[in-house]
Amino acid sequence: MTYCVGILIERGLVLAADSRTNAGVDHIATVRKLAVFERPGERVMALLSAGNLATTQAVVTLLTQRLGDEPEPGNLYAAPTMFDAARIVGGVLREVMAHDGEHVRPHGDPGASFLFAGQVRGERHRLFLIYPAGNFIEATRETPFLQAGETKYGKPILDRVIGYDSSLAEAAKCALLSFDATMRSNLSVAPPIDLLCYREGSLQADVRADIAENDAYFGKLRADYSRGILDLFKRLPDPDWVASGDPAANLIFFATHSL
Amino acid sequence: MTYCVGILIERGLVLAADSRTNAGVDHIATVRKLAVFERPGERVMALLSAGNLATTQAVVTLLTQRLGDEPEPGNLYAAPTMFDAARIVGGVLREVMAHDGEHVRPHGDPGASFLFAGQVRGERHRLFLIYPAGNFIEATRETPFLQAGETKYGKPILDRVIGYDSSLAEAAKCALLSFDATMRSNLSVAPPIDLLCYREGSLQADVRADIAENDAYFGKLRADYSRGILDLFKRLPDPDWVASGDPAANLIFFATHSL
Repeated sequence: MTYCVGILIERGLVLAADSRTNAGVDHIATVRKLAVFERPGERVMALLSAGNLATTQAVVTLLTQRLGDEPEPGNLYAAPTMFDAARIVGGVLREVMAHDGEHVRPHGDPGASFLFAGQVRGERHRLFLIYPAGNFIEATRETPFLQAGETKYGKPILDRVIGYDSSLAEAAKCALLSFDATMRSNLSVAPPIDLLCYREGSLQADVRADIAENDAYFGKLRADYSRGILDLFKRLPDPDWVASGDPAANLIFFATHSL
Repeated sequence: MTYCVGILIERGLVLAADSRTNAGVDHIATVRKLAVFERPGERVMALLSAGNLATTQAVVTLLTQRLGDEPEPGNLYAAPTMFDAARIVGGVLREVMAHDGEHVRPHGDPGASFLFAGQVRGERHRLFLIYPAGNFIEATRETPFLQAGETKYGKPILDRVIGYDSSLAEAAKCALLSFDATMRSNLSVAPPIDLLCYREGSLQADVRADIAENDAYFGKLRADYSRGILDLFKRLPDPDWVASGDPAANLIFFATHSL
C-alpha cells in the first residue's frame, strides 16, 4: 500500500508520499513515489504515485522519455497549462493500461492513481488527483487537499486543520501528522517520507525533504502530538450517564428487552 | 454505510452504532443497529449490525424468534457460553445468506458483519467480530477494540487512547470521539448513536444511551475536542526546513531534476 497527500494553499503546495511498496508481506521494498519534472523559472511539476508499481513506474518512465525541447505530444515541458499536463499523465496511464491491463488483471489490480501538482509560468499553482481511468479532479479553495492510496486514517487531521490560508509550514506539519495516523494503523505505509514544499511563484522545487524513520523533527512531532492527544482526552469531561467509580449512581436504565 | 465499535475493558464493555442506513443518497433512513438480548442476572448479549440491511434484519429477527426457555438449536438464551452464542449468530447469518445471497448478488453485496458482545453467568464478558462468512474473532487484552463497517476514520483515536485498563467512562468518551471523526469524513454515518455501557458482572444492560445530533454532551465534546486539536497543532513546533514568512532563508535545496 501507499499513502500520498497533496495540499493546495494560497502560498503554495505541499506534497508527500511514503516509500513502502509491497506485494504480500514477504516482498517489501523501498521505492520513491515522488517524481519531479522541473525547468527552474519556467515550470515545476511533481507526480506522486499510488497503486500497481509496474504501472506507475511505466507511466513515470514514459513521461520522462518524452521530456524535451520540442512540442511533441506527451512532452510535459511543452504543455501550455497544468490542465494540459494532467491530460498528458492521464493519457500515458491509459496507454500503459492498454498495454498491460488485461495481462495483469488475472494476477491482481493493474490500476494506479496519481497526485499531480505544480505551476507553469503564467498561471496559478494547481493540484490534481488522476484516477485509474485517466480522468481527474482538481483541488480548490474549498477542498484544499487530495489524497491517494490508503487515504482514510490520515484524513481526519487534514479535515480539522487545513485551510486554503494555512502556511506552508503548517501544511507540512499537518501532512506529517496525517502520515503518523496512517502509519500507526497500516503497516504497509512506512518511511522514509518524501516531501516537497513549493512556494507559489518560485517556479522551482523549493524544499525537498527526505524524512527517515529516525528523523529528529518527525520523531519529536509524533511523540508530542501523541502526548498532547492523551492530555486533551483526559481533560475532556466524561459523559455523566456513565458513573465512574460509583457502580450504582447516575445510571439511566432503558428498556432493553426488545429489539 | 454504518459504523460500529465495540470496546472490551477489564471493567466491562462499551458498544456503539450509528443509525443511518442508505441505499444511494436518495434512500436514507434511520434504523437501529444495536439489538440487546437480556435475561437480567443470568445473561446479557448485544448485537451490532453492519452491511446489507435486509440480511442484518433477517438475522436479528430469526435470532429473536428462536429465543425461549427450551434448549433448542439457535436459542441464544440456551447457549452455555458467549462462544457458543457467537456460533449461533454466525450460523444464522449463513442460513440467511444461503436463502438470499445468490438472489441479491446481482443487485449488490448481500453480506453483513456483526459485533457481538456480552456476558453469560459463570464466564467473563467477551466481544466478537463476526465476519460475512460466519466465522469470528475475539477481542483480547492486547486488542481491546473491534470495529465493523466504515472503520478507518475512527481508528486512530482508539489506537491512541484505549487500553484494557481504561475506565467505562473513558471508553464511552473515546467511542464518541471515534464517531466524531467518522461522521466528519463520511456523510453516510450519522446520529443518533446508540450506545450501550455494560459493567462487568452486572448481567444486565446497565446504561443504554441514545445520543442525538443535538445532544448537549456530545456537542460540547466534539467542539472541545476540535478546539483542543487545533490548539495542540499550533503549539507543536514547525519543521525548520520550511521557512515561515521568510521566503529565502533556511531552505534546503535538493537535486530534483531527475526522478
